[in-house]
Amino acid sequence: MAAEFPEQFKVTALAAGRRIERLTKQAREFDVSLVSVEREEDVAVVRGMLPGVDVRWGSEGLMEVALSQGVDMVVAALVGAAGLTSTLGALEAGIDVALANKETLVMAGQLMTAAAGKSGASILPVDSEHSAVFQALAGHDAAEVKRIILTASGGPFFGRSLESLKEVTPEEALAHPNWDMGRKISIDSATMMNKGLEVIEARWLFGLGAERIAVTVHPQSVVHSMVEFVDGSIIAHMGVADMRGPIAYALGNPSRLPLSGMALDLGRMGSLTFADPDFETFPALGLAYDAIKEGGTMPALLSGANEVAVEAFLSGLIRFTDISEVVKMAMNDYSPVEADSLEAVLEADSIARDRANQAVKNIRP
Amino acid sequence: MAAEFPEQFKVTALAAGRRIERLTKQAREFDVSLVSVEREEDVAVVRGMLPGVDVRWGSEGLMEVALSQGVDMVVAALVGAAGLTSTLGALEAGIDVALANKETLVMAGQLMTAAAGKSGASILPVDSEHSAVFQALAGHDAAEVKRIILTASGGPFFGRSLESLKEVTPEEALAHPNWDMGRKISIDSATMMNKGLEVIEARWLFGLGAERIAVTVHPQSVVHSMVEFVDGSIIAHMGVADMRGPIAYALGNPSRLPLSGMALDLGRMGSLTFADPDFETFPALGLAYDAIKEGGTMPALLSGANEVAVEAFLSGLIRFTDISEVVKMAMNDYSPVEADSLEAVLEADSIARDRANQAVKNIRP
Repeated sequence: MAAEFPEQFKVTALAAGRRIERLTKQAREFDVSLVSVEREEDVAVVRGMLPGVDVRWGSEGLMEVALSQGVDMVVAALVGAAGLTSTLGALEAGIDVALANKETLVMAGQLMTAAAGKSGASILPVDSEHSAVFQALAGHDAAEVKRIILTASGGPFFGRSLESLKEVTPEEALAHPNWDMGRKISIDSATMMNKGLEVIEARWLFGLGAERIAVTVHPQSVVHSMVEFVDGSIIAHMGVADMRGPIAYALGNPSRLPLSGMALDLGRMGSLTFADPDFETFPALGLAYDAIKEGGTMPALLSGANEVAVEAFLSGLIRFTDISEVVKMAMNDYSPVEADSLEAVLEADSIARDRANQAVKNIRP
Repeated sequence: MAAEFPEQFKVTALAAGRRIERLTKQAREFDVSLVSVEREEDVAVVRGMLPGVDVRWGSEGLMEVALSQGVDMVVAALVGAAGLTSTLGALEAGIDVALANKETLVMAGQLMTAAAGKSGASILPVDSEHSAVFQALAGHDAAEVKRIILTASGGPFFGRSLESLKEVTPEEALAHPNWDMGRKISIDSATMMNKGLEVIEARWLFGLGAERIAVTVHPQSVVHSMVEFVDGSIIAHMGVADMRGPIAYALGNPSRLPLSGMALDLGRMGSLTFADPDFETFPALGLAYDAIKEGGTMPALLSGANEVAVEAFLSGLIRFTDISEVVKMAMNDYSPVEADSLEAVLEADSIARDRANQAVKNIRP
């Protein structure tokens, strides 16, 4: 996006994990003055490859990138909990965050939105569903919103029975009908936990209770999400399934960038269908709603437990239908506490992993 | 709407044609101080039925209603050209107009939008397609609009060939698949001239050239219209097909009114389809685009000629497929003039009727 629209954007600093080649290539392309890597051991190599560039590492390096001179937007796209501290730091400093990381709001939605509210920073969603809601809400009075309706592809097992899902293999579950994704998110899509996590994110992004966030199964992924108003009007965002759309909207906000190759051919796209989600076959979705209602650190617990369960399924330790079972067992009898600090959130994540690992052991044949 | 939301609205004056019973009933219900009827001969009767109410008649009466003390919105729902003068008067006086009359913008769009622009009055569309576009545009930058896409039910003959439409009877053409309408508008829906007239209205309401107004055939009438932006995003308005929605949006603007019974059941509405319009089978749509491109008084001519042609079809004088033929013949060799006065517009309407009647005579077996 920055390469396509050099007039609009200037990349000033970059952070990466261990993909050093890619980092140095992008650092040269955008002529940045600061980069950060995950591990100290990579610093010397990167310094050698990027003379004149300030090279940092670890969570302090991330924070320096997020808060570096002249930054007016941070694109938060690190995987997992790694970016929580720096994202919170940016929001506290009043810097807008384009958010492509799910854990940020699932685990620490209360903290993040409170920080943004206090500093006046915006959290701009980069995934297609929340971007769609964001765009559908623009120009309308939030007090007139009846509910938001997130669309879900339904995953590869939409229409199947719970019983028939017991013998599903990782290979089957990784085959997403509409697009290629990472392994974790593909499984989350198949269990519909992915949509559950999005419901939790929506709860924070749009400040609505769980009862005002609905999900509809729309396998064609043309309608990216909708907002229903008190007069029955539904404002929907439609388009091709291409992440360039939501990325451009978050970066360009409040302006839209003229993107090529994004035109939806209405006359040739086939028919659009919508169905109510099946909470019985896909219990993960219901667990996410439960987590919102329980509140506090319960969503963080759900997220952490789900990561363990998905990994256990991919490793062949548990069955597909056990994924939700593990999450449910982890949530069972857990008493959430206030999610008012990153420590509380990370502690819940840690408890989640212990509980989920124990549940996997109990289930494993 | 005024009866349902007495806190929001106060009806102060009413105008009617010859339906005296209904006028007096409504005048009592809303305790209005001024009414106007079409003909002088009805004035005495109405005065007798509404003691203490000021009763006027004719086009002067209409104008007095439109400009009466304390009015901040005129609902223009008279049929045909009768309301042109008073609607223009209201707009010139800076009074917002909720527009439910098609001829106003088709015949005199240039005049009306110029008057509104000068005085700062708003024209609020009351039909579902334009209301949908209006709602989809809210909060977005007009400069970022690529095109608007009006949805069309396609009428009862969607999917048929031109040849097969030659023997269509008025009874067949009057059977609209989705809802009951008046006879004229039912035939316009069957020929798709209805959509052509809406394209002309959209040209004025939204200030876009014909090349930026598209039509898609969507028989389910769930998506009421759409706006496509430069980034490929499409913002659509969806809902049940109930005129209470657009009426409430026009009257309540910028607030939405909480309407009951308007919720769309996504899970049960069936699949949604979209198809490109068939300009060969439904030439009326193309004629409307031609009229916009010709400009000036050509749309007024098209509208007038179409009225005559529809009447001739309903009277059994011409075939269904001759309706567009008559309009085309009327447009042929007509040189439009500037539509910069109501006189010019009404003159074009008169020429249209002469030309169309002549065309009917030429066609009639």
